[in-house]
Amino acid sequence: MNNSYMQFRNFKMVDYVVYGRGCFNQLDEIIAPHRKADAPMIFLVDHFFEGNPLASRVPLRGNDEIIFADVTYEPKTTYVDALANQLKEKYGTVSGVIGIGGGSTMDLAKAVSLMMNNSGSSADYQGWDLVKQPGVYKVGIPTLSGTGAEVSRTTVLTGPTRKLGMNSDFTPFNQIVLDPELCKNAPGNQRFYTGMDCYIHCIESLEGTYLNEFSKSYGEKALELCRYIFLEKDVWDDECDDKLMMASYAGGMSIAYSQVGVAHAVSYGLSYLLGTKHGIGNCIVMNHLEEYYPTGVAEFKRMVEKGGYEIPQGICKGLSDEQFETMMNVSLGMKPLWENALGKDWEKIMTREKLRALYEKL
Amino acid sequence: MNNSYMQFRNFKMVDYVVYGRGCFNQLDEIIAPHRKADAPMIFLVDHFFEGNPLASRVPLRGNDEIIFADVTYEPKTTYVDALANQLKEKYGTVSGVIGIGGGSTMDLAKAVSLMMNNSGSSADYQGWDLVKQPGVYKVGIPTLSGTGAEVSRTTVLTGPTRKLGMNSDFTPFNQIVLDPELCKNAPGNQRFYTGMDCYIHCIESLEGTYLNEFSKSYGEKALELCRYIFLEKDVWDDECDDKLMMASYAGGMSIAYSQVGVAHAVSYGLSYLLGTKHGIGNCIVMNHLEEYYPTGVAEFKRMVEKGGYEIPQGICKGLSDEQFETMMNVSLGMKPLWENALGKDWEKIMTREKLRALYEKL
Repeated sequence: MNNSYMQFRNFKMVDYVVYGRGCFNQLDEIIAPHRKADAPMIFLVDHFFEGNPLASRVPLRGNDEIIFADVTYEPKTTYVDALANQLKEKYGTVSGVIGIGGGSTMDLAKAVSLMMNNSGSSADYQGWDLVKQPGVYKVGIPTLSGTGAEVSRTTVLTGPTRKLGMNSDFTPFNQIVLDPELCKNAPGNQRFYTGMDCYIHCIESLEGTYLNEFSKSYGEKALELCRYIFLEKDVWDDECDDKLMMASYAGGMSIAYSQVGVAHAVSYGLSYLLGTKHGIGNCIVMNHLEEYYPTGVAEFKRMVEKGGYEIPQGICKGLSDEQFETMMNVSLGMKPLWENALGKDWEKIMTREKLRALYEKL
Repeated sequence: MNNSYMQFRNFKMVDYVVYGRGCFNQLDEIIAPHRKADAPMIFLVDHFFEGNPLASRVPLRGNDEIIFADVTYEPKTTYVDALANQLKEKYGTVSGVIGIGGGSTMDLAKAVSLMMNNSGSSADYQGWDLVKQPGVYKVGIPTLSGTGAEVSRTTVLTGPTRKLGMNSDFTPFNQIVLDPELCKNAPGNQRFYTGMDCYIHCIESLEGTYLNEFSKSYGEKALELCRYIFLEKDVWDDECDDKLMMASYAGGMSIAYSQVGVAHAVSYGLSYLLGTKHGIGNCIVMNHLEEYYPTGVAEFKRMVEKGGYEIPQGICKGLSDEQFETMMNVSLGMKPLWENALGKDWEKIMTREKLRALYEKL
């Protein structure tokens, strides 16, 4: 459904949600009705799990295949196309694509599923409502919480000319499997960066100018969960994984009628030029946004300090003027984000000089 | 998908959600892609709106029809069957069924949609996962908030032998339209009774033994919204309608992995015997449950007092022993509710004598 003429977005939900410690064990049964003759299920698994016990728990049947996805960098349209073309050549079609990993892996799974049934390159579909056909059955299984990619109607991809999602009603997963047990052994810093994606976007959306009660109630809940996990708890335990998974889900749902802001807009420039991953990029930027989100940044810094997490500094040192220009162009292109954060007159507030000074601090 | 063998329920979501003041105006556009040749859209509208301006805003096209639904009593299987049969005879099939009203109207719309594509009587499908075929396209548009019927996978019906839902993955709506403006002129007491359905089921589920973080986070949010609306606010304004609509949605979602308790179990007996509507029935019972939910009942009484709402008393006066037996049998049949509230040994706690004494107080 095309939403372009509607005042309020008609939000496409994921079809099925299962939540629970150990519910990954139900995967075989859940996907069974979606198996089609000889077409395999393709499990796209974050390469972090290569040789990990989780890989051996993937319920392979027949000609099913595990592909370990290289998510060192955020997903590129070229990588999506290569994976989809390889599957088309080998199998004609597949029964489904199941992404197991963090936001990058889930976005990759969504994009590959769509490209199994849409011609050309995924770069052709970067934008809003450009996707023509539903993808093959797709399942998202997060092993890191915070991005909200499990419930979003986009799949952020770096293309030849821009970093932009395939944003459509065909994009959301048919099924998500929310098993907090899968997050247990995530590296602490990585877990924090990803969790902060949720925290930061809640600060941005709740303080933004685009908001209604639907998004507010989800955003407030996500924020409350993040505060409990990262400020009140003294040790990381199962309860933290349980709650962070719900924070991520609620944060993702809150995006329906809200928008992110300064941290995301600036961080997109870093990702585009330097390949900085989304979670850590947001943290690097948030660290220097006192002027825009004074309370949120102070709280963010308390979370960093309490957990002893590392936020990289000086990543823009030694960049050329041309490189700064590239980042600034990408960032200033995110008009809705700036407008949400700073209002209609945002261009008078966030001048090129001011943005350059901000990038130099990072 | 049959969930009977799964440890964790795989929850079917509604397909599309639109939320916003005035989004009812988008209904014509939203349903347009679902119109099929000569098959009409059927608008099942709560009879409360007969002659009301809302009825004239229904986007009728071609042979579309408004049917004013008599929801004086909760929906009966006989009424569902009569409506579905009448539509089948008149049109063969319909493009969709759109329920506009409170929980009863929405449940009726879901049930009629299912019965357009399933043979026999709706009474044949009261239970879990008995429905064989998807229904026709169905849309839920609440004009009262609190029941959660807009997101549930059931449709509670009073049948020849029991009050039980057609609980299946085919039951949830394809689309819900959440427009808080539609609740503006609801009668105060009715609005309270329906809102308390949400409040009471959150108390029951959060204090119950069946719960996980998914349902907890939704339940906590719904409860927080109810407390704000009914205890902190001094006048009823648009913000109350906005937030109560989200409380209802969140309360409905929280049912995925939780269960209601004593108030619902006892209230089901009243509904079955006396036709007491669900919202008011829960309030009548909650008023006397200090022993089971001391904090919740005290808070409920403060809400009643603050708003000056009327809770009927003495409704069981003069009933015969046989009638008390009928209510008790219906109530004690709700085993999962009792077990959630009182644990595995609930039968030792809630004896027939004790339940009889409770009914006599109502």
